Amino acid sequence: MTTPLSGITVVGLEQAISAPLCTRHLADLGARVIKIEQPGFGDSTRHYDRVVRGMAAHFVWLNHGKESAALDLTDPADADVFTGLLERADVLVSNLGPGALGRLGFAPEELAERYPRLIVVDISGYGRGGPLDHKRAYDLLVQAEAGSCAITGMPGAPVKPGIPIADIGTALYAYSSVLAALYERDRSGRGAVIPIAMLDVVAEMMGFALNQVLHAGTEPEPVGMGSPMIAPYGAYPTADGQTAVLGTTSDREWRRLTTDLLDRPELSADPRYAHNHDRVAHRAELDEIVGTWCAKRDLAEIQRLADAAGIGNARLNGVRELAEHPQLAARDRWHDIDSTAGPLPALLPPALARGWAPVSGRVPELGADTEAIREEFGSSIAE
Amino acid sequence: MTTPLSGITVVGLEQAISAPLCTRHLADLGARVIKIEQPGFGDSTRHYDRVVRGMAAHFVWLNHGKESAALDLTDPADADVFTGLLERADVLVSNLGPGALGRLGFAPEELAERYPRLIVVDISGYGRGGPLDHKRAYDLLVQAEAGSCAITGMPGAPVKPGIPIADIGTALYAYSSVLAALYERDRSGRGAVIPIAMLDVVAEMMGFALNQVLHAGTEPEPVGMGSPMIAPYGAYPTADGQTAVLGTTSDREWRRLTTDLLDRPELSADPRYAHNHDRVAHRAELDEIVGTWCAKRDLAEIQRLADAAGIGNARLNGVRELAEHPQLAARDRWHDIDSTAGPLPALLPPALARGWAPVSGRVPELGADTEAIREEFGSSIAE
Repeated sequence: MTTPLSGITVVGLEQAISAPLCTRHLADLGARVIKIEQPGFGDSTRHYDRVVRGMAAHFVWLNHGKESAALDLTDPADADVFTGLLERADVLVSNLGPGALGRLGFAPEELAERYPRLIVVDISGYGRGGPLDHKRAYDLLVQAEAGSCAITGMPGAPVKPGIPIADIGTALYAYSSVLAALYERDRSGRGAVIPIAMLDVVAEMMGFALNQVLHAGTEPEPVGMGSPMIAPYGAYPTADGQTAVLGTTSDREWRRLTTDLLDRPELSADPRYAHNHDRVAHRAELDEIVGTWCAKRDLAEIQRLADAAGIGNARLNGVRELAEHPQLAARDRWHDIDSTAGPLPALLPPALARGWAPVSGRVPELGADTEAIREEFGSSIAE
Repeated sequence: MTTPLSGITVVGLEQAISAPLCTRHLADLGARVIKIEQPGFGDSTRHYDRVVRGMAAHFVWLNHGKESAALDLTDPADADVFTGLLERADVLVSNLGPGALGRLGFAPEELAERYPRLIVVDISGYGRGGPLDHKRAYDLLVQAEAGSCAITGMPGAPVKPGIPIADIGTALYAYSSVLAALYERDRSGRGAVIPIAMLDVVAEMMGFALNQVLHAGTEPEPVGMGSPMIAPYGAYPTADGQTAVLGTTSDREWRRLTTDLLDRPELSADPRYAHNHDRVAHRAELDEIVGTWCAKRDLAEIQRLADAAGIGNARLNGVRELAEHPQLAARDRWHDIDSTAGPLPALLPPALARGWAPVSGRVPELGADTEAIREEFGSSIAE
């Protein structure tokens, strides 16, 4: 078993979700991650709630496998320790507020000059320049600004996706850019400065909707449990009080749905529904047809018949059903991580190659490693 | 200017969103990407609509910068070309249906034995084993199964996030795992087999909600435009008919909001609202307070005052407003990509390091490169 990032040291000047999830995934691959936190307060997610044996749900999710050093970067002795860290680190990931790195004396371009092999990921809400570059950016704010809420919900009633897409998407682009820069550094010998703006991340994820507005001139409307681009595709109540989710993504599936599942071959031949864009135009009546069929059957029967007809289907689950999902249990996706409150259940990382060892590090207390980090990275000048 | 993945060849046995977005991002970094499509039909997203000068919005978004080879892998001559590709490729990314790679004679483990330096990414809906491993998986189905819809919308009225999170998240985990495997291959000399299940991806993104259910025993409820973990945080109508989005993520911000923005210092001192978990418990009354204040002011004034008070804020935008967003324009985030219908606007990739050249490849017609690929990779035996 190997851990691909053994020997790589990552410094996280980080808070909330985007940078912490990025560095957690680097830790998942075996990197040493040193999380820098504000003395006394720490990462703001530590204070969201106390549900995990006194620790916060977000913090536990995003920070296992890291060391925590509580350093005040405005204090010369602590700044000296931080400088010692940067001298020996491979990667710095930061998502402090606009301009904060520069104000602390660690502007990305200066770091790149001083430490030519360092990879600096500079996460911001809106990037450098432009009318919004000074603005604070949290997940909801960026999702609202980037139109993600406008295509979620129902017409006239937008909602925010529950999963913090702007934060998580930014984390994943930061994570992949670090890996690309490590690969590139092996060739060029040089590190990199990688600016990532959350707005650009959500805009990328809106690519299909942007193309629709730019070229068709129509604003995609939110369609509840459906998808704006295909139909029929949605959630339908069943006879036993559950909710079946099913749909078609192509003309071939439409023909299977009508002929093999609904036993309505005449629909298959109806030119009003021949192609996907025709069906999208008749979404409501198709939802009615599928809904009526589902309402007469139990979920288990619907899923069995849909599987037999080659029609994708699922159950509309809550979070508890995810926690107890037989598909996660059957595939041993849960393992234990360590914490001062004892072992805690966590999911394995989603993308480990066969032969890569899963890392199960502990959830750090605020400043648990401060003294050890001072000793290891503080210069003799400061002592 | 450099392109980090110059010299890397990627084969995409791909359709829809997850594998195509993964390989598009590999192309963004300079890899050569050869997309294998079914002759005559191609990637199903080609047929979703015709809004981009006859091409589909999804297809254009996800496939620029690739070559397209229309190969029938059940035909021995075409399978031979595909084998020639694998012999010389660095990466294979596949998201065919359950078991399809194996039925075609290209099971991931066999490929790993035959081509020890090849990196194989095997995307599936639910992974291997378990009760759901045979099931079709589309974005909506996996989001429903993984509880993402249950935490989006309003209580009793779940909706699907408009952005296809399951597909895009899977793409980004696939993309980063390829980069990690390329880095690791430089050290070990070996490729990798990387199974990625969409269910595991969405479950990872549900980490905070899972911790809440596992430890507090309560199911997080969807809260419309809000966030289940913090309050006040939401969307509020303004006097000029727009919608302001603002919120607080910490006790310090709460004190700034009440004292410096709302001019209600008594709220700051109110023990009912002292900590975030207290405020979450009083979400409705806090939304009422913020909403009443916003309803009396225009959006511009709200944003100016909130900025001055250090309170994050945004505008609730539609997709057209994203397309015309001054923050994207001011930072030159749009460039032209090429297509047979002429140049098309596209966003730059979200995470390019300074000095990495943006690649602007063309949108391929179905099978545009078939003959060239046959010539380059077909063996003399087949000819």
